[in-house]
Amino acid sequence: MSLVGLNFNLIAEAESGARRGQIELPHHTVQSPAFMPVGTAGSVKAVAQDVLESLGAEIILGNTYHLYLRPGHEPIRRMGGLHRFIAWPRALLTDSGGFQVFSLSQLRKVSDDGVQFRSHLDGSSHFFTPEHSMDVQIALGADIAMAFDECTEYPADRARATESLRLTMAWARRSLDYFRAHRNEVPWYEEQGASTQSLFGIVQGGMYADLRRECAQRLVEMDFDGYAIGGLSVGEPRELTLEMISEVLPLLPNDKPRYVMGVGYPDEIELYAKKGVDMMDCVLPTRAARHGLLFTSEGRVNIKNRRYAEDQGPPDPACDCMVCRRYSRAYLRHLIQAGEPLSGTLNSIHNLAYYFGIMRRVRSELSVHDATAQAEMRTS
Amino acid sequence: MSLVGLNFNLIAEAESGARRGQIELPHHTVQSPAFMPVGTAGSVKAVAQDVLESLGAEIILGNTYHLYLRPGHEPIRRMGGLHRFIAWPRALLTDSGGFQVFSLSQLRKVSDDGVQFRSHLDGSSHFFTPEHSMDVQIALGADIAMAFDECTEYPADRARATESLRLTMAWARRSLDYFRAHRNEVPWYEEQGASTQSLFGIVQGGMYADLRRECAQRLVEMDFDGYAIGGLSVGEPRELTLEMISEVLPLLPNDKPRYVMGVGYPDEIELYAKKGVDMMDCVLPTRAARHGLLFTSEGRVNIKNRRYAEDQGPPDPACDCMVCRRYSRAYLRHLIQAGEPLSGTLNSIHNLAYYFGIMRRVRSELSVHDATAQAEMRTS
Repeated sequence: MSLVGLNFNLIAEAESGARRGQIELPHHTVQSPAFMPVGTAGSVKAVAQDVLESLGAEIILGNTYHLYLRPGHEPIRRMGGLHRFIAWPRALLTDSGGFQVFSLSQLRKVSDDGVQFRSHLDGSSHFFTPEHSMDVQIALGADIAMAFDECTEYPADRARATESLRLTMAWARRSLDYFRAHRNEVPWYEEQGASTQSLFGIVQGGMYADLRRECAQRLVEMDFDGYAIGGLSVGEPRELTLEMISEVLPLLPNDKPRYVMGVGYPDEIELYAKKGVDMMDCVLPTRAARHGLLFTSEGRVNIKNRRYAEDQGPPDPACDCMVCRRYSRAYLRHLIQAGEPLSGTLNSIHNLAYYFGIMRRVRSELSVHDATAQAEMRTS
Repeated sequence: MSLVGLNFNLIAEAESGARRGQIELPHHTVQSPAFMPVGTAGSVKAVAQDVLESLGAEIILGNTYHLYLRPGHEPIRRMGGLHRFIAWPRALLTDSGGFQVFSLSQLRKVSDDGVQFRSHLDGSSHFFTPEHSMDVQIALGADIAMAFDECTEYPADRARATESLRLTMAWARRSLDYFRAHRNEVPWYEEQGASTQSLFGIVQGGMYADLRRECAQRLVEMDFDGYAIGGLSVGEPRELTLEMISEVLPLLPNDKPRYVMGVGYPDEIELYAKKGVDMMDCVLPTRAARHGLLFTSEGRVNIKNRRYAEDQGPPDPACDCMVCRRYSRAYLRHLIQAGEPLSGTLNSIHNLAYYFGIMRRVRSELSVHDATAQAEMRTS
């Protein structure tokens, strides 16, 4: 019997490459293109799960590195997996831990076998291999796990990018082999009628189009359940980000989801969605929110600005989110000035609503001429 | 024409002195006995207004001292008052600023005229008089304002308590005179059909029963809209708190609300409600929550404790609040360990639900034999 982890239904496609779909996962069917909020340590910072649901979040991320260090993947496995632990019944995706090992940990030593590193929390020593990353992600039990990769830094010369890519390819193979042998060990395997996790491969290759293409082709041969483009939004100019995405997308199979990791600003996620990207994640809407930066239909609003001190208008006049319907700019400014914890919550809710609104608009534009999609919209 | 600020309807009274009532205020009718969460700077810390509503909060506090310093009472007056500024359509109460002037500010100098102090925020110099406190509170426009008083410290010898009481009595008179002359200047006066704020007097007198009784009698002669007992829960043993409350309550008019300020633990608020106290406020449920202390039907739970690391049970098995219905002790422990902002939010929601549950139980016990109250319960 073959395990079912993911079904991708294409509902509509545009000339531009943009596509609307449904990603059927064991815990939830996600409408795509989808924006995925980041719940680093098992919480989308300052926003409660019921609020995320009411905003329309269908899939959120957990960071393997953070959850591995605290509270640990074994306790989460024993408690039935991450869905149950964080009380999130919809879909989840975990990253491989690779990105945080490279960006947060100390004294890391990379070998062909894996990465030795010290925890940024307590300095304790750890060793991550592709197999270990898979084991941790299976314990967490997200609907989608990611292959263990090395995120190539920017800038990187061609020799460095080539060597990094070699590592990522070898680790992708080992991730997939281990995952295939163990995917039915996910904590909720029995509960969900023998459906289980899916594994996505990650396209690296720095900013070298030919390396990116080679990587994509070889990952597609390995036959992952979906494909991510990683190593972007690491400091490169935007044109380069778009060029890398444009080089890779045509090489990926049409019938599997395409995920660009760690992007981006509102105009970026709209642009990439219109190029044919199905999934994106970013800490930006929530992180910017905690610093008082709101994304609105009138552009960016730094809510700390004195000019808003007596502005009784809503944060975004065109937005009907629960924050914009109730609170004024003056109040949001006061909350951040006074250091009130509600500030981060309300700002995050608005920014997430704004991001979801963009994706909803892109999706609905894609279904105007498509009867199936419209029927689906009426019932959703 | 006489201004209407407050109607107090007694629904049920018990032998013990306990009473159930309805406090009709311009913005909301509050079921009493009522617990009032504290929204120091215009936000009940970490809990959004819609959540407070769904928990059943009918009246919340704002602190005059904090709001006067930031964002300032004049901006709030220009924006239509505190209700509109913080988007809270139900009832509000502001304290007089006195307590925080004494507990937070620096270099204060008390004279018969008022208190000179320096802001704890920026060291700027300010002078508060009874008239100025009234002016600030009228600008804020809470449904209930409080007379400017001196909160007598504990311990205080008889001479000191007597002198402090003399000041409080003189300030009560001046507060009332100024308030009566200016109460129709509240920002929402026209909107609410010429109903306006009410003013409560505050009984002080340290821990001297005769001083407390004298203070109560003289305040009652002045004819306030309601009466508070202040200067309690300042470090004295609990028996003394109860003794002072018991001395004062019988002297207060039956047809006006009685408010004990700044209490307390769950067993205290239940005890005082059963003695005939109609209103109480305290930062404890939200402050304790932010430090990981949960009040539950099984006693206090320090959610940081290692023993809860894999405890998949709800925070309080007997509680049906939105936190206990969804999240486990293990998850709440993880959130506080990981420093997640959601920790303070979820813990605060549970603790507030627990406090409201106590008041709801006391109220329902008081109406078992009362047809009017039962009819009211069915329609509320």
